[in-house]
Amino acid sequence: MWAKSLTTVVQNAAKTSGVRAASTILPGEPKEPTIVTSEIPGPKSKQLISELDTVTQSGTIQFFADYQNSIGNYIADVDGNKYLDIFMQISSMPLGYNHPEMLNVFKNEESLKVLVNRPALGAFPTEYWPKKLKEVLMSVSPGLPNVMTMMCGSCSNENAYKCLFMAYRKHQRGEDVDFSELEKSSCMVNQPPGAPNLSLLSFHGGFHGRTIGTLSTTHSKAIHKLDIPAFDWPVAPFPKYKYPLEQNERENRLEDEKCLAVVEELIEKYNKKGVPVAGIIIEPIQSEGGDNEASPEFFQKLQRIAKKNGAGFLVDEVQTGGGATGKMWCHEHFNLDNPPDIVTFSKKMLTGGFYHNLDHKPTQTYRVYNTWMGDPSKLLLLESFLKVMKQQNLLDQVNTVGAKLKAGLHQCQNEFPVLNSVRGRGSFLAVNVETSALRDKVVANLKKKGILTGGSGELAIRFRPSLTLQENHVNVFLDRFRQVLKGLN
Amino acid sequence: MWAKSLTTVVQNAAKTSGVRAASTILPGEPKEPTIVTSEIPGPKSKQLISELDTVTQSGTIQFFADYQNSIGNYIADVDGNKYLDIFMQISSMPLGYNHPEMLNVFKNEESLKVLVNRPALGAFPTEYWPKKLKEVLMSVSPGLPNVMTMMCGSCSNENAYKCLFMAYRKHQRGEDVDFSELEKSSCMVNQPPGAPNLSLLSFHGGFHGRTIGTLSTTHSKAIHKLDIPAFDWPVAPFPKYKYPLEQNERENRLEDEKCLAVVEELIEKYNKKGVPVAGIIIEPIQSEGGDNEASPEFFQKLQRIAKKNGAGFLVDEVQTGGGATGKMWCHEHFNLDNPPDIVTFSKKMLTGGFYHNLDHKPTQTYRVYNTWMGDPSKLLLLESFLKVMKQQNLLDQVNTVGAKLKAGLHQCQNEFPVLNSVRGRGSFLAVNVETSALRDKVVANLKKKGILTGGSGELAIRFRPSLTLQENHVNVFLDRFRQVLKGLN
Repeated sequence: MWAKSLTTVVQNAAKTSGVRAASTILPGEPKEPTIVTSEIPGPKSKQLISELDTVTQSGTIQFFADYQNSIGNYIADVDGNKYLDIFMQISSMPLGYNHPEMLNVFKNEESLKVLVNRPALGAFPTEYWPKKLKEVLMSVSPGLPNVMTMMCGSCSNENAYKCLFMAYRKHQRGEDVDFSELEKSSCMVNQPPGAPNLSLLSFHGGFHGRTIGTLSTTHSKAIHKLDIPAFDWPVAPFPKYKYPLEQNERENRLEDEKCLAVVEELIEKYNKKGVPVAGIIIEPIQSEGGDNEASPEFFQKLQRIAKKNGAGFLVDEVQTGGGATGKMWCHEHFNLDNPPDIVTFSKKMLTGGFYHNLDHKPTQTYRVYNTWMGDPSKLLLLESFLKVMKQQNLLDQVNTVGAKLKAGLHQCQNEFPVLNSVRGRGSFLAVNVETSALRDKVVANLKKKGILTGGSGELAIRFRPSLTLQENHVNVFLDRFRQVLKGLN
Repeated sequence: MWAKSLTTVVQNAAKTSGVRAASTILPGEPKEPTIVTSEIPGPKSKQLISELDTVTQSGTIQFFADYQNSIGNYIADVDGNKYLDIFMQISSMPLGYNHPEMLNVFKNEESLKVLVNRPALGAFPTEYWPKKLKEVLMSVSPGLPNVMTMMCGSCSNENAYKCLFMAYRKHQRGEDVDFSELEKSSCMVNQPPGAPNLSLLSFHGGFHGRTIGTLSTTHSKAIHKLDIPAFDWPVAPFPKYKYPLEQNERENRLEDEKCLAVVEELIEKYNKKGVPVAGIIIEPIQSEGGDNEASPEFFQKLQRIAKKNGAGFLVDEVQTGGGATGKMWCHEHFNLDNPPDIVTFSKKMLTGGFYHNLDHKPTQTYRVYNTWMGDPSKLLLLESFLKVMKQQNLLDQVNTVGAKLKAGLHQCQNEFPVLNSVRGRGSFLAVNVETSALRDKVVANLKKKGILTGGSGELAIRFRPSLTLQENHVNVFLDRFRQVLKGLN
């Protein structure tokens, strides 16, 4: 009821004002941030951090949030501060806080039973499961016919990697050839040929998770990887572009070619080493490792290299997926020859999982399997998000508002030489600051002015708003961003 | 309201009847199973399986469940069958289906906001998070001072393994010694010394998950492992006991000694190979690999071997934890010298995670980290489960009802020579059938008579009831079990 009346209000508001961008602001959202403590975290947060520290790691806590009083694009903390949130739980909240449609999902006995009777989805799914997979997840599939749900981004990648290895071995072995007895026995003690010497090629600066398998493909920060054993797998350079792109086309094209040549060399090298490359793993924008982007041509050629070498092509859309780049999937900007073999997701999609083609569907059962295989209650939330996204044309809004934010960042870059390399798609944007120390200072000072953003890589500030970001939020941000930049002098 | 009135009804019923075992049956629970289809899965389930198969792997589906009409220990399917469920979503549902206390958890705006505003718990947790960790998770800690929440059992193990490696390297390096520049650079390309040559020792028959890291320690079935690259890590034999235990004490003790000797040999061997053993990973009962148990003395000595060799000792309680063995944690039956270094959990605990001592707390931040770091809504469900468990003395009930089930299985074993090796703790029980084919037939025929159980390893039937299993359920099961066993002739 609440949700429906809100939609009506919103539609009427849009009609009368003629301003589409006004349509997604939730009732009760503040007009601007309010910071009432002299330090962040404030005294109550600090007290809670010391309590938390007695039972778990607390060193990464920014503040304790008050989710009861957060709304839309504004997050409240326990000290009474209210921030405009352009980071959104590390790129996770597609509609911001306390969206009435999301709050409505479990206001009925049927949905509560979905939540409470959590099934082993691979064994005893609910009647509605095939329908929901089709109507919800497959309705936004990037051209791939199958999907598996998982619990989080890391698990999605871990299991997707397994599908790459299985498909590669299936091609080597022959589609209808059964496992040999030696394979069956050797795999049980982690030895080839059953546990084969195969590798995955990933990129410097890439981030695909911190579980031990995915960590072998993650190369964004040493602290994530130190002390953890890793597979000897090839790591290729990801293009480093000069900005603005339109003034550096030739140089950036050469950078693409250089990186692609190394990819081919590495594949040859690892084939010769007896550890063939079964798959190539890449983010459409390196979202933790510095918001590094590459051209559509780079991705097109990379996919062709994968195909030529019989390696699967996996695009990790855990951070980029779900609409923030102005398309449902960032790689849809690339005009690829075919969809990737596998596309993984989580975060804004609310459930983890991966889309895949039929070649990457495990031929036998129980090869990609676990107790829960995802959580159907998260699919109900996703359903609600996608409904709102479609009803309110949020992808259009992301493009409109993102363009305004990007233009504003470009203006700031012109005004403040400490900034450079504005980049990104939709509202999934970033800008570099001259040094790491200055970047950290800008992010910290923005927070003191009531704006939450995040760092990415060494130099970037990353912007990861919800899809409901509006022009007025951009104005509020740009105003305070300028204040912070002025304050650096 | 509903929940409170139920508790009152239940308490009154217990008082008047004097039968504690009657106290946890939910209103509306069937008296016995009803099977109305000639085949399982029935026609509606079959139709749904073929629908599901168009978008995802469907070969592992047993039937489509009707969770709206499942209650307590009975699961309904979409064809109108009602089964007594002694498998409970692969050992996951602590209170059975649609427990009113669980359905109550999200019947208020505050909890709905917890559910919908899913935080990045490592960065922006909620005010109540330290309190809930203490009052809920720490209230059942197995003597360990810290806890980290995760999304599922595999992720819990993956991250716990990382803590083992980090602690081992910390001891090697010296507590206050910083990472070297070479470590920092080499880890980024997956090479030692930053990504060190270290191993984890696990056991044949063990199961710790199917993500790529944990899969290197899983050795229950070849199909889980085929085609997936693995670390060359040592695999030790797990004791294979003769039953009944009291008639085979000497032989089983020798089996313990033999296995422990191999553990020591393997540690020496891998140390010499330059891949030292950083940790030992074990289940207190091998719960997928055949319900294999080992003596308290075996575990005590194994822990001492770990300690002597500077290896961490991780007990994986993902399937055994949460009360089903008659204690909150199965390893609490073992009278260990000290708590294990790490205890991992998921399934019945509703949230994944792991307890650990301070030596296994990462010294630096962001080393064990991810976007969500668990899901606070699951902790609200866990809180409710633990409240009911304490109020209704469910651990006592597990011991009483489990003893009755075990006695019944012993009687069946005496009556039917096809059975042997009844074993287990609490209601976490198993019995072997002579051959794999016969075991599969018994499990299938039980299902046709409306009893859900599971296979484990080659020969075992495993029983994984909720903690609310009652004597009357045991009677219903034993009656039908006998019918099935008679029908084998």
